[in-house]
Amino acid sequence: MAISSSSSSSSLTRFLTAPCQKDRILSFGNNINFNKNNKRNNKLCINASSSSAAANKSIKELTLDSKVEVLLDSVKWDDKGLAVAIAQNVDTGAILMQGFANREALATTISSRKATFFSRSRSSLWTKGETSNNFINVHDVFLDCDRDSIIYLGKPDGPTCHTGSETCYYSSVNNFLNHSKVEDSTLALTTLYSLESTISQRKAEIEADDSGKPSWTRRLLLDKKLLCSKIREEADELCRTLEENEDQSRSASEMADVLYHAMVLLALKNVKAEEVLEVLRLRFTKSGIEEKNSRK
Amino acid sequence: MAISSSSSSSSLTRFLTAPCQKDRILSFGNNINFNKNNKRNNKLCINASSSSAAANKSIKELTLDSKVEVLLDSVKWDDKGLAVAIAQNVDTGAILMQGFANREALATTISSRKATFFSRSRSSLWTKGETSNNFINVHDVFLDCDRDSIIYLGKPDGPTCHTGSETCYYSSVNNFLNHSKVEDSTLALTTLYSLESTISQRKAEIEADDSGKPSWTRRLLLDKKLLCSKIREEADELCRTLEENEDQSRSASEMADVLYHAMVLLALKNVKAEEVLEVLRLRFTKSGIEEKNSRK
Repeated sequence: MAISSSSSSSSLTRFLTAPCQKDRILSFGNNINFNKNNKRNNKLCINASSSSAAANKSIKELTLDSKVEVLLDSVKWDDKGLAVAIAQNVDTGAILMQGFANREALATTISSRKATFFSRSRSSLWTKGETSNNFINVHDVFLDCDRDSIIYLGKPDGPTCHTGSETCYYSSVNNFLNHSKVEDSTLALTTLYSLESTISQRKAEIEADDSGKPSWTRRLLLDKKLLCSKIREEADELCRTLEENEDQSRSASEMADVLYHAMVLLALKNVKAEEVLEVLRLRFTKSGIEEKNSRK
Repeated sequence: MAISSSSSSSSLTRFLTAPCQKDRILSFGNNINFNKNNKRNNKLCINASSSSAAANKSIKELTLDSKVEVLLDSVKWDDKGLAVAIAQNVDTGAILMQGFANREALATTISSRKATFFSRSRSSLWTKGETSNNFINVHDVFLDCDRDSIIYLGKPDGPTCHTGSETCYYSSVNNFLNHSKVEDSTLALTTLYSLESTISQRKAEIEADDSGKPSWTRRLLLDKKLLCSKIREEADELCRTLEENEDQSRSASEMADVLYHAMVLLALKNVKAEEVLEVLRLRFTKSGIEEKNSRK
Protein backbone atom coordinates (compact mmCIF):
# COMPACT_ATOMS: atom_id res chain seq x y z
CA MET A 1 0.00 0.00 0.00
CA ALA A 2 2.73 2.46 -0.88
CA ILE A 3 2.10 5.72 -2.62
CA SER A 4 4.39 5.78 -5.62
CA SER A 5 7.26 8.19 -5.45
CA SER A 6 6.53 11.47 -7.19
CA SER A 7 7.41 15.12 -6.97
CA SER A 8 4.63 15.61 -4.46
CA SER A 9 5.03 12.52 -2.39
CA SER A 10 7.67 14.03 -0.14
CA SER A 11 5.18 16.72 0.85
CA LEU A 12 2.68 14.01 1.56
CA THR A 13 5.25 12.15 3.58
CA ARG A 14 5.94 15.26 5.59
CA PHE A 15 2.27 15.75 6.26
CA LEU A 16 1.63 12.17 7.20
CA THR A 17 4.67 11.25 9.20
CA ALA A 18 5.61 12.88 12.42
CA PRO A 19 8.66 11.79 14.41
CA CYS A 20 6.40 10.43 17.12
CA GLN A 21 4.84 8.08 14.63
CA LYS A 22 7.98 6.25 13.64
CA ASP A 23 7.02 3.16 15.60
CA ARG A 24 3.63 2.97 13.96
CA ILE A 25 4.57 3.48 10.34
CA LEU A 26 6.00 0.39 8.76
CA SER A 27 8.34 2.32 6.55
CA PHE A 28 8.51 5.76 5.02
CA GLY A 29 10.69 8.13 3.11
CA ASN A 30 9.48 8.68 -0.40
CA ASN A 31 6.80 6.07 0.16
CA ILE A 32 3.83 6.24 2.46
CA ASN A 33 2.68 3.15 4.25
CA PHE A 34 -0.50 3.15 6.20
CA ASN A 35 -0.59 1.96 9.73
CA LYS A 36 -2.59 -1.21 9.56
CA ASN A 37 -3.02 -1.55 13.31
CA ASN A 38 -4.60 1.83 13.35
CA LYS A 39 -7.51 0.71 11.24
CA ARG A 40 -8.52 -1.98 13.65
CA ASN A 41 -9.98 0.64 15.95
CA ASN A 42 -12.01 2.57 13.49
CA LYS A 43 -15.66 2.57 14.37
CA LEU A 44 -16.65 3.80 10.95
CA CYS A 45 -16.17 1.28 8.20
CA ILE A 46 -13.69 2.85 5.82
CA ASN A 47 -13.67 2.30 2.13
CA ALA A 48 -10.71 0.02 1.87
CA SER A 49 -10.72 -0.01 -1.90
CA SER A 50 -10.57 3.77 -2.14
CA SER A 51 -7.72 3.85 0.36
CA SER A 52 -5.98 1.15 -1.53
CA ALA A 53 -6.42 3.00 -4.79
CA ALA A 54 -5.23 6.17 -3.10
CA ALA A 55 -2.13 4.39 -1.97
CA ASN A 56 -1.05 3.79 -5.53
CA LYS A 57 -1.36 7.39 -6.66
CA SER A 58 0.62 10.54 -6.05
CA ILE A 59 -1.00 13.27 -3.98
CA LYS A 60 -1.79 15.34 -7.09
CA GLU A 61 -3.77 12.50 -8.61
CA LEU A 62 -5.90 11.78 -5.57
CA THR A 63 -9.54 12.78 -5.49
CA LEU A 64 -10.70 14.85 -2.54
CA ASP A 65 -12.46 11.82 -1.02
CA SER A 66 -9.32 9.73 -1.30
CA LYS A 67 -7.28 12.49 0.31
CA VAL A 68 -9.72 12.57 3.20
CA GLU A 69 -9.33 8.79 3.59
CA VAL A 70 -5.53 9.15 3.60
CA LEU A 71 -5.87 11.87 6.20
CA LEU A 72 -8.22 9.84 8.42
CA ASP A 73 -5.86 6.85 8.15
CA SER A 74 -3.00 9.03 9.36
CA VAL A 75 -4.65 9.88 12.68
CA LYS A 76 -3.44 7.89 15.67
CA TRP A 77 -6.83 6.86 17.05
CA ASP A 78 -6.67 5.48 20.60
CA ASP A 79 -7.85 2.02 21.70
CA LYS A 80 -11.41 3.30 21.66
CA GLY A 81 -11.01 4.80 18.16
CA LEU A 82 -10.87 8.33 19.52
CA ALA A 83 -8.60 11.37 19.47
CA VAL A 84 -8.84 14.57 21.52
CA ALA A 85 -10.58 17.39 19.62
CA ILE A 86 -10.25 20.98 20.82
CA ALA A 87 -12.47 23.75 19.42
CA GLN A 88 -10.74 27.13 19.27
CA ASN A 89 -12.10 30.55 18.28
CA VAL A 90 -10.28 31.57 15.10
CA ASP A 91 -10.39 35.28 15.98
CA THR A 92 -9.70 35.38 19.70
CA GLY A 93 -7.83 32.12 20.21
CA ALA A 94 -10.17 31.22 23.09
CA ILE A 95 -10.43 27.49 23.71
CA LEU A 96 -14.18 26.98 23.43
CA MET A 97 -14.56 23.34 24.44
CA GLN A 98 -12.83 19.99 24.25
CA GLY A 99 -14.34 16.70 23.25
CA PHE A 100 -13.31 13.59 21.41
CA ALA A 101 -13.54 12.74 17.73
CA ASN A 102 -13.69 9.36 16.09
CA ARG A 103 -13.06 8.79 12.41
CA GLU A 104 -16.66 9.62 11.49
CA ALA A 105 -16.73 12.80 13.61
CA LEU A 106 -13.58 14.13 11.97
CA ALA A 107 -14.86 13.20 8.50
CA THR A 108 -18.16 14.94 9.26
CA THR A 109 -16.38 18.05 10.54
CA ILE A 110 -14.28 18.22 7.38
CA SER A 111 -17.27 17.83 5.07
CA SER A 112 -19.87 19.86 6.98
CA ARG A 113 -17.49 22.48 8.42
CA LYS A 114 -19.39 22.23 11.71
CA ALA A 115 -17.41 21.02 14.75
CA THR A 116 -18.53 17.45 15.35
CA PHE A 117 -17.56 15.13 18.18
CA PHE A 118 -18.16 11.60 19.35
CA SER A 119 -20.16 11.64 22.57
CA ARG A 120 -18.70 8.97 24.82
CA SER A 121 -21.69 9.03 27.17
CA ARG A 122 -24.24 8.55 24.38
CA SER A 123 -21.96 6.55 22.05
CA SER A 124 -23.03 8.66 19.12
CA LEU A 125 -21.93 11.46 16.85
CA TRP A 126 -22.71 14.92 18.13
CA THR A 127 -22.48 18.17 16.21
CA LYS A 128 -22.05 21.09 18.58
CA GLY A 129 -25.08 23.33 18.00
CA GLU A 130 -27.51 20.68 16.81
CA THR A 131 -29.69 21.48 19.85
CA SER A 132 -28.67 25.05 20.75
CA ASN A 133 -28.04 26.27 17.20
CA ASN A 134 -24.72 27.58 18.43
CA PHE A 135 -22.64 25.79 15.83
CA ILE A 136 -18.89 26.17 15.62
CA ASN A 137 -18.11 26.94 11.98
CA VAL A 138 -14.79 25.29 11.30
CA HIS A 139 -12.35 27.17 9.06
CA ASP A 140 -9.49 24.70 9.32
CA VAL A 141 -8.50 21.57 11.20
CA PHE A 142 -5.02 20.96 12.57
CA LEU A 143 -3.32 17.79 13.74
CA ASP A 144 -0.50 17.75 16.24
CA CYS A 145 2.93 16.15 15.84
CA ASP A 146 1.68 12.93 17.47
CA ARG A 147 -1.41 12.94 15.25
CA ASP A 148 -3.62 12.10 18.19
CA SER A 149 -4.81 15.61 18.99
CA ILE A 150 -6.96 17.79 16.77
CA ILE A 151 -7.80 21.51 16.71
CA TYR A 152 -11.08 22.62 15.16
CA LEU A 153 -10.25 26.27 14.42
CA GLY A 154 -13.51 28.09 13.85
CA LYS A 155 -16.04 30.74 14.60
CA PRO A 156 -18.81 30.02 17.11
CA ASP A 157 -22.35 31.19 16.34
CA GLY A 158 -22.93 31.92 20.01
CA PRO A 159 -21.90 30.79 23.50
CA THR A 160 -20.33 27.34 23.32
CA CYS A 161 -21.00 26.06 26.85
CA HIS A 162 -24.36 24.50 27.68
CA THR A 163 -24.36 26.78 30.75
CA GLY A 164 -24.55 29.81 28.45
CA SER A 165 -20.93 30.71 29.08
CA GLU A 166 -18.86 31.79 26.11
CA THR A 167 -16.49 28.88 26.67
CA CYS A 168 -16.57 25.82 28.93
CA TYR A 169 -13.48 26.95 30.86
CA TYR A 170 -14.72 29.32 33.55
CA SER A 171 -13.29 27.82 36.74
CA SER A 172 -9.99 29.47 37.62
CA VAL A 173 -7.78 27.59 40.05
CA ASN A 174 -6.02 30.84 41.05
CA ASN A 175 -9.31 32.36 42.05
CA PHE A 176 -10.28 29.30 44.02
CA LEU A 177 -6.98 29.04 45.88
CA ASN A 178 -6.27 32.72 46.49
CA HIS A 179 -9.62 34.29 47.16
CA SER A 180 -12.20 33.41 49.72
CA LYS A 181 -14.81 34.46 47.22
CA VAL A 182 -14.98 32.53 44.00
CA GLU A 183 -15.97 34.85 41.17
CA ASP A 184 -18.52 33.79 38.63
CA SER A 185 -17.42 33.01 35.11
CA THR A 186 -13.73 33.71 35.34
CA LEU A 187 -13.05 32.74 31.77
CA ALA A 188 -9.61 31.60 30.69
CA LEU A 189 -8.78 34.93 29.07
CA THR A 190 -5.56 35.61 27.25
CA THR A 191 -3.87 39.01 27.61
CA LEU A 192 -5.87 41.14 25.16
CA TYR A 193 -9.23 39.83 26.42
CA SER A 194 -8.17 40.06 30.03
CA LEU A 195 -7.41 43.75 29.43
CA GLU A 196 -10.72 44.15 27.61
CA SER A 197 -12.50 42.60 30.57
CA THR A 198 -10.78 44.98 33.02
CA ILE A 199 -11.71 48.04 30.94
CA SER A 200 -15.25 46.73 30.70
CA GLN A 201 -15.42 46.37 34.50
CA ARG A 202 -14.27 49.99 34.97
CA LYS A 203 -16.97 51.08 32.54
CA ALA A 204 -19.61 49.07 34.41
CA GLU A 205 -18.54 50.69 37.70
CA ILE A 206 -19.03 54.13 36.19
CA GLU A 207 -22.40 53.17 34.75
CA ALA A 208 -23.48 51.78 38.12
CA ASP A 209 -22.50 55.13 39.64
CA ASP A 210 -19.98 53.28 41.73
CA SER A 211 -17.28 55.74 42.79
CA GLY A 212 -14.71 52.95 42.33
CA LYS A 213 -10.99 53.28 42.70
CA PRO A 214 -9.37 56.14 40.83
CA SER A 215 -7.57 54.79 37.80
CA TRP A 216 -6.23 55.98 34.48
CA THR A 217 -8.77 53.82 32.65
CA ARG A 218 -11.57 55.48 34.62
CA ARG A 219 -10.29 58.94 33.74
CA LEU A 220 -10.10 58.05 30.06
CA LEU A 221 -13.60 56.57 30.06
CA LEU A 222 -14.95 59.78 31.60
CA ASP A 223 -13.05 62.17 29.36
CA LYS A 224 -13.38 61.52 25.62
CA LYS A 225 -11.25 64.53 24.74
CA LEU A 226 -8.39 63.25 26.87
CA LEU A 227 -8.82 59.75 25.44
CA CYS A 228 -8.70 60.88 21.82
CA SER A 229 -5.72 63.15 22.41
CA LYS A 230 -3.91 60.17 23.96
CA ILE A 231 -4.72 57.86 21.03
CA ARG A 232 -3.39 60.41 18.54
CA GLU A 233 -0.33 61.05 20.71
CA GLU A 234 0.49 57.35 21.13
CA ALA A 235 0.07 56.66 17.40
CA ASP A 236 2.48 59.52 16.74
CA GLU A 237 4.98 58.13 19.26
CA LEU A 238 4.73 54.68 17.67
CA CYS A 239 5.56 56.23 14.27
CA ARG A 240 8.50 58.09 15.75
CA THR A 241 10.08 54.83 16.93
CA LEU A 242 10.39 53.99 13.21
CA GLU A 243 11.21 57.47 11.95
CA GLU A 244 13.83 58.11 14.60
CA ASN A 245 15.13 54.57 14.59
CA GLU A 246 14.43 53.92 18.25
CA ASP A 247 15.01 50.49 19.71
CA GLN A 248 12.57 47.57 19.48
CA SER A 249 11.45 47.77 23.09
CA ARG A 250 10.26 51.34 22.46
CA SER A 251 8.15 50.15 19.52
CA ALA A 252 6.63 47.36 21.61
CA SER A 253 5.91 49.77 24.45
CA GLU A 254 4.35 52.44 22.21
CA MET A 255 2.27 49.84 20.41
CA ALA A 256 1.04 48.61 23.80
CA ASP A 257 0.00 52.21 24.55
CA VAL A 258 -1.81 52.51 21.22
CA LEU A 259 -3.62 49.21 21.81
CA TYR A 260 -4.64 50.00 25.36
CA HIS A 261 -5.99 53.48 24.62
CA ALA A 262 -7.75 52.29 21.47
CA MET A 263 -9.37 49.52 23.50
CA VAL A 264 -10.77 52.06 25.93
CA LEU A 265 -12.35 53.80 22.95
CA LEU A 266 -13.76 50.48 21.73
CA ALA A 267 -15.26 49.88 25.18
CA LEU A 268 -17.00 53.27 25.01
CA LYS A 269 -18.37 52.32 21.61
CA ASN A 270 -19.36 48.83 22.83
CA VAL A 271 -17.18 47.22 20.21
CA LYS A 272 -15.39 43.98 21.09
CA ALA A 273 -11.81 43.22 20.05
CA GLU A 274 -13.25 40.05 18.52
CA GLU A 275 -15.33 42.15 16.10
CA VAL A 276 -12.22 44.06 15.02
CA LEU A 277 -10.36 40.82 14.42
CA GLU A 278 -13.27 39.48 12.42
CA VAL A 279 -13.08 42.57 10.19
CA LEU A 280 -9.37 41.92 9.71
CA ARG A 281 -9.95 38.25 8.92
CA LEU A 282 -12.65 39.00 6.36
CA ARG A 283 -10.33 41.49 4.68
CA PHE A 284 -7.25 39.33 4.59
CA THR A 285 -8.45 35.82 3.97
CA LYS A 286 -9.70 34.33 0.76
CA SER A 287 -13.27 34.47 2.04
CA GLY A 288 -12.60 38.13 2.76
CA ILE A 289 -11.75 38.74 -0.88
CA GLU A 290 -14.94 36.94 -1.85
CA GLU A 291 -16.85 38.94 0.74
CA LYS A 292 -15.45 42.21 -0.62
CA ASN A 293 -16.24 41.22 -4.20
CA SER A 294 -19.76 40.26 -3.24
CA ARG A 295 -20.34 43.82 -2.02
CA LYS A 296 -19.28 45.39 -5.32
CA MET B 1 -18.04 14.66 54.33
CA ALA B 2 -20.07 17.84 53.98
CA ILE B 3 -18.54 21.27 54.19
CA SER B 4 -20.60 23.16 56.74
CA SER B 5 -22.81 25.86 55.36
CA SER B 6 -21.21 29.30 55.59
CA SER B 7 -21.19 32.59 53.80
CA SER B 8 -18.50 31.29 51.52
CA SER B 9 -19.72 27.80 50.93
CA SER B 10 -22.02 28.79 48.11
CA SER B 11 -18.99 30.12 46.23
CA LEU B 12 -17.26 26.85 46.88
CA THR B 13 -20.31 24.99 45.68
CA ARG B 14 -20.34 27.04 42.52
CA PHE B 15 -16.70 26.28 41.91
CA LEU B 16 -16.97 22.59 42.62
CA THR B 17 -20.25 21.67 41.04
CA ALA B 18 -20.95 21.98 37.39
CA PRO B 19 -24.26 20.93 35.87
CA CYS B 20 -22.55 18.05 34.10
CA GLN B 21 -21.43 16.69 37.45
CA LYS B 22 -24.86 16.23 38.94
CA ASP B 23 -24.74 12.48 38.50
CA ARG B 24 -21.40 12.24 40.24
CA ILE B 25 -22.03 14.42 43.24
CA LEU B 26 -24.10 12.68 45.87
CA SER B 27 -25.83 15.86 46.95
CA PHE B 28 -25.11 19.55 46.90
CA GLY B 29 -26.58 22.93 47.48
CA ASN B 30 -25.14 24.59 50.52
CA ASN B 31 -23.18 21.45 51.26
CA ILE B 32 -20.35 19.95 49.29
CA ASN B 33 -20.04 16.22 49.02
CA PHE B 34 -17.05 14.67 47.41
CA ASN B 35 -17.45 12.11 44.74
CA LYS B 36 -16.24 8.93 46.35
CA ASN B 37 -16.09 6.93 43.14
CA ASN B 38 -13.74 9.49 41.77
CA LYS B 39 -11.10 8.69 44.34
CA ARG B 40 -10.92 5.05 43.34
CA ASN B 41 -8.98 5.96 40.26
CA ASN B 42 -6.41 8.26 41.75
CA LYS B 43 -2.93 7.01 41.18
CA LEU B 44 -1.49 9.33 43.82
CA CYS B 45 -2.45 8.40 47.35
CA ILE B 46 -4.39 11.37 48.64
CA ASN B 47 -4.39 12.49 52.21
CA ALA B 48 -7.81 11.34 53.21
CA SER B 49 -7.62 12.91 56.63
CA SER B 50 -6.81 16.33 55.23
CA SER B 51 -9.68 16.05 52.77
CA SER B 52 -11.91 14.91 55.54
CA ALA B 53 -10.84 17.78 57.74
CA ALA B 54 -11.30 20.14 54.82
CA ALA B 55 -14.77 18.86 54.35
CA ASN B 56 -15.77 20.10 57.77
CA LYS B 57 -14.52 23.64 57.27
CA SER B 58 -15.75 26.60 55.29
CA ILE B 59 -13.63 27.72 52.36
CA LYS B 60 -12.21 30.67 54.31
CA GLU B 61 -10.86 28.37 57.02
CA LEU B 62 -9.13 25.95 54.67
CA THR B 63 -5.36 25.91 54.38
CA LEU B 64 -3.89 26.18 50.89
CA ASP B 65 -2.98 22.48 50.92
CA SER B 66 -6.52 21.51 51.88
CA LYS B 67 -7.92 23.72 49.13
CA VAL B 68 -5.68 21.96 46.62
CA GLU B 69 -6.97 18.59 47.87
CA VAL B 70 -10.57 19.80 47.50
CA LEU B 71 -9.74 20.97 44.00
CA LEU B 72 -8.07 17.69 43.01
CA ASP B 73 -11.04 15.78 44.40
CA SER B 74 -13.36 17.83 42.21
CA VAL B 75 -11.73 16.75 38.94
CA LYS B 76 -13.53 14.03 37.03
CA TRP B 77 -10.56 11.75 36.41
CA ASP B 78 -11.23 9.05 33.80
CA ASP B 79 -10.96 5.29 34.35
CA LYS B 80 -7.17 5.60 34.02
CA GLY B 81 -7.04 8.48 36.51
CA LEU B 82 -6.41 11.03 33.75
CA ALA B 83 -7.90 14.24 32.39
CA VAL B 84 -7.02 16.08 29.18
CA ALA B 85 -4.57 18.95 29.79
CA ILE B 86 -4.11 21.66 27.15
CA ALA B 87 -1.23 24.15 27.36
CA GLN B 88 -2.12 27.57 25.95
CA ASN B 89 0.05 30.66 25.46
CA VAL B 90 -1.29 33.35 27.81
CA ASP B 91 -0.37 36.18 25.44
CA THR B 92 -1.22 34.84 21.99
CA GLY B 93 -3.83 32.21 22.82
CA ALA B 94 -1.92 29.65 20.75
CA ILE B 95 -2.57 26.06 21.78
CA LEU B 96 0.95 24.86 22.44
CA MET B 97 0.42 21.16 23.10
CA GLN B 98 -2.03 18.73 24.61
CA GLY B 99 -1.28 15.94 27.00
CA PHE B 100 -2.91 14.23 29.94
CA ALA B 101 -2.69 15.01 33.64
CA ASN B 102 -3.25 12.72 36.57
CA ARG B 103 -3.80 13.95 40.10
CA GLU B 104 -0.07 14.23 40.79
CA ALA B 105 0.63 16.07 37.51
CA LEU B 106 -2.03 18.69 38.25
CA ALA B 107 -0.83 19.05 41.85
CA THR B 108 2.75 19.48 40.61
CA THR B 109 1.68 22.05 38.01
CA ILE B 110 -0.15 24.05 40.68
CA SER B 111 2.78 23.99 43.09
CA SER B 112 5.70 24.33 40.64
CA ARG B 113 3.92 26.57 38.10
CA LYS B 114 5.53 24.49 35.34
CA ALA B 115 3.15 22.62 33.00
CA THR B 116 3.37 18.97 34.05
CA PHE B 117 1.74 15.98 32.43
CA PHE B 118 1.43 12.24 32.91
CA SER B 119 3.21 10.43 30.10
CA ARG B 120 1.04 7.49 29.13
CA SER B 121 3.83 5.84 27.15
CA ARG B 122 6.34 6.01 30.00
CA SER B 123 3.77 5.80 32.84
CA SER B 124 5.48 8.63 34.65
CA LEU B 125 5.20 12.30 35.44
CA TRP B 126 6.70 14.60 32.85
CA THR B 127 7.34 18.30 33.18
CA LYS B 128 7.48 19.95 29.77
CA GLY B 129 10.97 21.46 29.50
CA GLU B 130 12.78 19.07 31.83
CA THR B 131 14.92 17.96 28.87
CA SER B 132 14.70 20.93 26.47
CA ASN B 133 14.58 23.67 29.13
CA ASN B 134 11.59 25.06 27.27
CA PHE B 135 9.30 25.08 30.26
CA ILE B 136 5.75 26.40 30.10
CA ASN B 137 5.37 28.80 33.01
CA VAL B 138 1.80 28.42 34.15
CA HIS B 139 -0.01 31.59 35.24
CA ASP B 140 -3.37 30.00 35.91
CA VAL B 141 -5.16 26.69 35.50
CA PHE B 142 -8.76 26.38 34.31
CA LEU B 143 -11.21 23.51 34.53
CA ASP B 144 -14.10 23.07 32.14
CA CYS B 145 -17.77 22.65 33.01
CA ASP B 146 -17.40 18.85 32.98
CA ARG B 147 -14.29 19.09 35.16
CA ASP B 148 -12.50 16.57 32.97
CA SER B 149 -10.55 19.01 30.81
CA ILE B 150 -7.84 21.37 32.00
CA ILE B 151 -6.15 24.44 30.50
CA TYR B 152 -2.63 25.32 31.61
CA LEU B 153 -2.54 29.01 30.67
CA GLY B 154 1.07 30.08 30.59
CA LYS B 155 4.13 31.47 28.91
CA PRO B 156 6.51 29.15 27.10
CA ASP B 157 10.26 29.68 27.48
CA GLY B 158 10.79 28.60 23.88
CA PRO B 159 9.35 26.34 21.17
CA THR B 160 7.03 23.79 22.71
CA CYS B 161 7.18 21.01 20.13
CA HIS B 162 10.05 18.51 20.21
CA THR B 163 10.41 19.18 16.46
CA GLY B 164 11.41 22.78 17.25
CA SER B 165 8.08 24.14 16.12
CA GLU B 166 6.48 26.84 18.25
CA THR B 167 3.47 24.60 18.84
CA CYS B 168 2.71 20.95 18.11
CA TYR B 169 -0.12 21.84 15.72
CA TYR B 170 1.48 22.46 12.36
CA SER B 171 -0.43 20.12 10.04
CA SER B 172 -3.28 21.96 8.36
CA VAL B 173 -6.00 19.79 6.84
CA ASN B 174 -7.01 22.61 4.45
CA ASN B 175 -3.49 22.75 3.09
CA PHE B 176 -3.38 19.00 2.68
CA LEU B 177 -6.73 18.75 0.94
CA ASN B 178 -6.61 21.87 -1.23
CA HIS B 179 -3.02 22.17 -2.34
CA SER B 180 -0.87 19.70 -4.10
CA LYS B 181 2.06 21.08 -2.17
CA VAL B 182 1.94 20.73 1.59
CA GLU B 183 3.58 23.73 3.19
CA ASP B 184 5.96 23.30 6.08
CA SER B 185 4.89 24.39 9.50
CA THR B 186 1.47 25.78 8.79
CA LEU B 187 0.77 26.61 12.40
CA ALA B 188 -2.77 26.88 13.68
CA LEU B 189 -2.72 30.67 13.67
CA THR B 190 -5.59 32.80 14.86
CA THR B 191 -6.45 36.00 13.00
CA LEU B 192 -3.89 38.45 14.40
CA TYR B 193 -1.01 35.99 14.00
CA SER B 194 -2.16 34.91 10.59
CA LEU B 195 -2.01 38.56 9.52
CA GLU B 196 1.40 38.92 11.18
CA SER B 197 2.61 35.89 9.25
CA THR B 198 1.35 37.33 5.94
CA ILE B 199 3.07 40.67 6.56
CA SER B 200 6.22 38.83 7.52
CA GLN B 201 6.11 36.85 4.23
CA ARG B 202 5.81 40.08 2.23
CA LYS B 203 8.81 41.45 4.09
CA ALA B 204 10.81 38.28 3.39
CA GLU B 205 9.95 38.55 -0.32
CA ILE B 206 11.32 42.10 -0.41
CA GLU B 207 14.45 41.09 1.49
CA ALA B 208 14.98 38.19 -0.93
CA ASP B 209 14.74 40.73 -3.76
CA ASP B 210 11.74 38.81 -5.01
CA SER B 211 9.64 41.12 -7.12
CA GLY B 212 6.52 39.46 -5.68
CA LYS B 213 2.97 40.46 -6.34
CA PRO B 214 2.17 44.13 -5.94
CA SER B 215 0.26 44.64 -2.71
CA TRP B 216 -0.59 47.40 -0.31
CA THR B 217 1.47 45.70 2.41
CA ARG B 218 4.47 45.66 0.07
CA ARG B 219 4.07 49.37 -0.68
CA LEU B 220 3.86 50.20 3.02
CA LEU B 221 6.93 48.11 3.82
CA LEU B 222 8.90 49.94 1.14
CA ASP B 223 7.72 53.43 2.05
CA LYS B 224 8.10 54.37 5.70
CA LYS B 225 6.76 57.87 5.14
CA LEU B 226 3.56 56.50 3.60
CA LEU B 227 3.26 53.93 6.40
CA CYS B 228 3.59 56.49 9.18
CA SER B 229 1.19 58.91 7.53
CA LYS B 230 -1.34 56.06 7.29
CA ILE B 231 -0.91 55.11 10.96
CA ARG B 232 -1.50 58.72 12.07
CA GLU B 233 -4.44 59.04 9.68
CA GLU B 234 -6.11 55.83 10.81
CA ALA B 235 -5.67 56.71 14.49
CA ASP B 236 -7.32 60.04 13.76
CA GLU B 237 -10.19 58.34 11.96
CA LEU B 238 -10.67 55.94 14.85
CA CYS B 239 -10.94 58.92 17.23
CA ARG B 240 -13.44 60.60 14.96
CA THR B 241 -15.78 57.60 15.21
CA LEU B 242 -16.09 58.51 18.88
CA GLU B 243 -16.01 62.30 18.52
CA GLU B 244 -18.54 62.33 15.71
CA ASN B 245 -20.63 59.55 17.16
CA GLU B 246 -20.30 57.26 14.15
CA ASP B 247 -21.72 53.77 14.29
CA GLN B 248 -20.01 50.75 15.84
CA SER B 249 -19.08 49.12 12.57
CA ARG B 250 -17.06 52.24 11.67
CA SER B 251 -15.13 51.98 14.93
CA ALA B 252 -14.41 48.29 14.32
CA SER B 253 -13.31 49.04 10.77
CA GLU B 254 -11.05 51.97 11.73
CA MET B 255 -9.53 49.96 14.58
CA ALA B 256 -8.80 47.17 12.09
CA ASP B 257 -7.00 49.76 9.95
CA VAL B 258 -4.99 51.02 12.92
CA LEU B 259 -4.03 47.46 13.88
CA TYR B 260 -3.03 46.40 10.40
CA HIS B 261 -0.88 49.45 9.65
CA ALA B 262 0.71 49.35 13.09
CA MET B 263 1.55 45.69 12.54
CA VAL B 264 3.36 46.56 9.32
CA LEU B 265 5.45 48.99 11.37
CA LEU B 266 6.12 46.28 13.95
CA ALA B 267 7.26 43.93 11.17
CA LEU B 268 9.74 46.57 9.97
CA LYS B 269 11.03 46.88 13.53
CA ASN B 270 11.13 43.07 13.95
CA VAL B 271 8.76 43.27 16.90
CA LYS B 272 6.24 40.47 17.38
CA ALA B 273 2.64 41.07 18.46
CA GLU B 274 3.38 38.62 21.26
CA GLU B 275 6.01 41.00 22.67
CA VAL B 276 3.49 43.85 22.66
CA LEU B 277 0.96 41.71 24.49
CA GLU B 278 3.59 40.72 27.02
CA VAL B 279 4.25 44.41 27.70
CA LEU B 280 0.50 44.91 28.22
CA ARG B 281 0.25 41.91 30.53
CA LEU B 282 3.17 43.02 32.66
CA ARG B 283 1.59 46.44 32.99
CA PHE B 284 -1.90 45.31 33.82
CA THR B 285 -1.53 42.21 35.95
CA LYS B 286 -0.54 42.05 39.56
CA SER B 287 2.93 40.88 38.60
CA GLY B 288 3.05 43.95 36.36
CA ILE B 289 2.46 46.22 39.35
CA GLU B 290 5.19 44.39 41.21
CA GLU B 291 7.43 44.66 38.18
CA LYS B 292 6.79 48.41 37.95
CA ASN B 293 7.40 48.89 41.67
CA SER B 294 10.61 46.91 41.49
CA ARG B 295 11.93 49.40 38.95
CA LYS B 296 11.34 52.39 41.24
